[in-house]
Amino acid sequence: MVEGSKETLANDHHGWLKAKAWKLQQKMVELSNNTTKVGKDDPRRIVHSLKLGLAITTVSLFFYFEPLYDGLGTSSIWAIITVVVVFEFSVGATLGKGMNRAIATLIAGAIGFGAHYITSFTGNIWHPILLGILIYTISATASYCRFFPKLKAKYDYGLLIFILTFNMVALSGFRDDEILKLAWHRLANILVGAFIAVAICIFVRPVWAGADLHQLVATNIENLGTFLEGFGIENFGACQGEMVGGGSVMKYRSVLCSKQNEEALAYQATWEPPHGKFRLCHPWKQYRKIGTLSRDCAYCFEILNRYLNTDQIQLPLEIQRQYQEQCVQVCIESSKALKAMAKALRDIVPPALAKSHIEIAKKTAGELKLLIASSHFHGNMNMVSTTTLILLLIDSFSCVEKIVDSIHELVSLARMNTALQKSDVTSTDQKGSGDKASSQPHHIVTIAQS
Amino acid sequence: MVEGSKETLANDHHGWLKAKAWKLQQKMVELSNNTTKVGKDDPRRIVHSLKLGLAITTVSLFFYFEPLYDGLGTSSIWAIITVVVVFEFSVGATLGKGMNRAIATLIAGAIGFGAHYITSFTGNIWHPILLGILIYTISATASYCRFFPKLKAKYDYGLLIFILTFNMVALSGFRDDEILKLAWHRLANILVGAFIAVAICIFVRPVWAGADLHQLVATNIENLGTFLEGFGIENFGACQGEMVGGGSVMKYRSVLCSKQNEEALAYQATWEPPHGKFRLCHPWKQYRKIGTLSRDCAYCFEILNRYLNTDQIQLPLEIQRQYQEQCVQVCIESSKALKAMAKALRDIVPPALAKSHIEIAKKTAGELKLLIASSHFHGNMNMVSTTTLILLLIDSFSCVEKIVDSIHELVSLARMNTALQKSDVTSTDQKGSGDKASSQPHHIVTIAQS
Repeated sequence: MVEGSKETLANDHHGWLKAKAWKLQQKMVELSNNTTKVGKDDPRRIVHSLKLGLAITTVSLFFYFEPLYDGLGTSSIWAIITVVVVFEFSVGATLGKGMNRAIATLIAGAIGFGAHYITSFTGNIWHPILLGILIYTISATASYCRFFPKLKAKYDYGLLIFILTFNMVALSGFRDDEILKLAWHRLANILVGAFIAVAICIFVRPVWAGADLHQLVATNIENLGTFLEGFGIENFGACQGEMVGGGSVMKYRSVLCSKQNEEALAYQATWEPPHGKFRLCHPWKQYRKIGTLSRDCAYCFEILNRYLNTDQIQLPLEIQRQYQEQCVQVCIESSKALKAMAKALRDIVPPALAKSHIEIAKKTAGELKLLIASSHFHGNMNMVSTTTLILLLIDSFSCVEKIVDSIHELVSLARMNTALQKSDVTSTDQKGSGDKASSQPHHIVTIAQS
Repeated sequence: MVEGSKETLANDHHGWLKAKAWKLQQKMVELSNNTTKVGKDDPRRIVHSLKLGLAITTVSLFFYFEPLYDGLGTSSIWAIITVVVVFEFSVGATLGKGMNRAIATLIAGAIGFGAHYITSFTGNIWHPILLGILIYTISATASYCRFFPKLKAKYDYGLLIFILTFNMVALSGFRDDEILKLAWHRLANILVGAFIAVAICIFVRPVWAGADLHQLVATNIENLGTFLEGFGIENFGACQGEMVGGGSVMKYRSVLCSKQNEEALAYQATWEPPHGKFRLCHPWKQYRKIGTLSRDCAYCFEILNRYLNTDQIQLPLEIQRQYQEQCVQVCIESSKALKAMAKALRDIVPPALAKSHIEIAKKTAGELKLLIASSHFHGNMNMVSTTTLILLLIDSFSCVEKIVDSIHELVSLARMNTALQKSDVTSTDQKGSGDKASSQPHHIVTIAQS
């Protein structure tokens, strides 16, 4: 018995080890899969990581080379801190943080030095008391300001850095006699750090939040179009329930949860200088409006889908046939309009065909309404359901109309903007005699920035 | 003429000054209104600002008193930085940041010191090269890790601090011979700062993210109930369109945009120790599920509302009367069920009456369906619209049912949790003879944490 139980124990132990090893192997496989997936989903992530490494290595040169280190003093650590904290994925986010940090540091440094300077005249006992009162008041006030919605949206990080720097400078002054030199060294380091972060972010394979937002909104519109097309064919088309797989059609769901991403990108985009096809004062706000309308539309689709999937609805062919043609047309024409608008938005050109598609869809929707009003119902529940479905479809169409209008507005705003800036360039050119470089985009950018 | 134009100029100037002064006055009034509003909306914001001021003033004592300053060294600045950065509105957010910062600092400090130590044996030329390679690799890897969804959700701040601290320690070592002493001083300061921030956050009028989340979700459910009640009375009730003002009914709209807030609170709540009626391992995840269902329900209401407000719908009294009774009943009973569930959720008690309300509403909804199926339609567009409306209402009711079920689940999970921990306490008490403090909540907390 004892022998047997010993053997069992050894076997148990062996089994336990095996299970552990297997588990560990599973974990490693999962980890490597995850790692690959994160990179595959957006290869720019890998580039970003390498860029951050590059930025930090660049800053660390200040430590290795004697002359650089001596020039900037022992505060070099602040250059490192600034690079790590400021370096973000997109140019807009980096610029936003960098500007916030630089400006807040300047203002807070000046006020902190002032607070130290004024209180230092009051003698050994009153100095800490007055300084304490100032620190308490200014910190609490700045912290309260962070609750103001407008300040929170754009300057939250700046206010945090303000509180931080003000306290650091005011308190360092209490202990360090060379406060001005110290403050200057830190400021110089922070500016160097912010400059390196921003420069590497902009000049090494930049990621523009504006371009991302543009792409995201256009793709969302396209997904809505794809859904409508598939929906029309699947539910009202000739080959019902066969043609369309769920995968590509369900893409509209991603529209539903794009709000947070869109808002962050729209905020970052406002910090970015003109780039690619986006001029100064590109109407970034309009994207959020289109985004909201897209989500409204996606919710209409969600309701349509849910309505179809509950057990109360079946659509017998004989009833469908009555409205088939019109329903398919509304779906297909709306879908074409959406896709045309997505393309127009991508290239920022006036949409050529969208209006005519919308007109056809509108006319057909009107016909559908008349058909429903004039048809006879024989107490048929399925008939009622079909009618409900069609009315919901018409409701969705009105969402599509709104989206098309708002994209129209965006494109014309953006083009007007471009035209204005171009005419500025031309007039400047005519003044400056014979500057031939005017047709090059970088020239336009320079003038637009001045 | 010259006299006249001079006078006009003076008048113009006077007018300009007046306009400026008026504008400034307007701005000041607006600012003071905004300031009052921010405080009135949530008075805890004022308390938070005062608390932050208190925390910073407490830390600044290290600078004023010689023995404290000498004890912690010139790195005292790190205590200030930690307090400012870690101190957040809710206990959960503060603890989350504090833990992230403390743990990341420890790990990064150790690795950074190791990197410095190993490379320092390689001589003057190889030291910076090897150190540079290490810094590049580790920074890039850690930065890449920030893209992993799971790590990003909970440890994003920790990873940032890891990159920061690792580089600081590794590079400081290159210049400072007393690196161990320096690292120890910084770590001590960061721990002191984090401790002060967390202590003041918890012990001076704490704001619990968990309690906020609980309150938010319950209020959302209540708002949905209020809407349904008003909707039923307004659209199907006897005194149509009279009783209900838009204000209180439209509260369901706030449910639509509560997602971001809910997710942040749910994340913060997981960091919080047991407090009030929330035990350890309170099912915080379930709140997000209920939140999602609430938003689904609110979208159904939005569609209902939108459907009523488009011009295609009028509800003549003669048609309504047919379904009036049932519709009102579905609305009122669903509303009662929602309100009962909100109350049960608030107190974490099993809901007494909700089930019976739901049963009545379910039965009535079934009757409505039968009524619609058996009624005769005379090609009447209004009839079709009414039917659509009723079908949408039934759809909304199924959302309400799901909400009620998920709250049931949450309440029973929470109560099971409490019961388990209570029985733990009781059994521990029976072992430890005559410990009379067992009924005090802090005792339970201690055991639950151990």
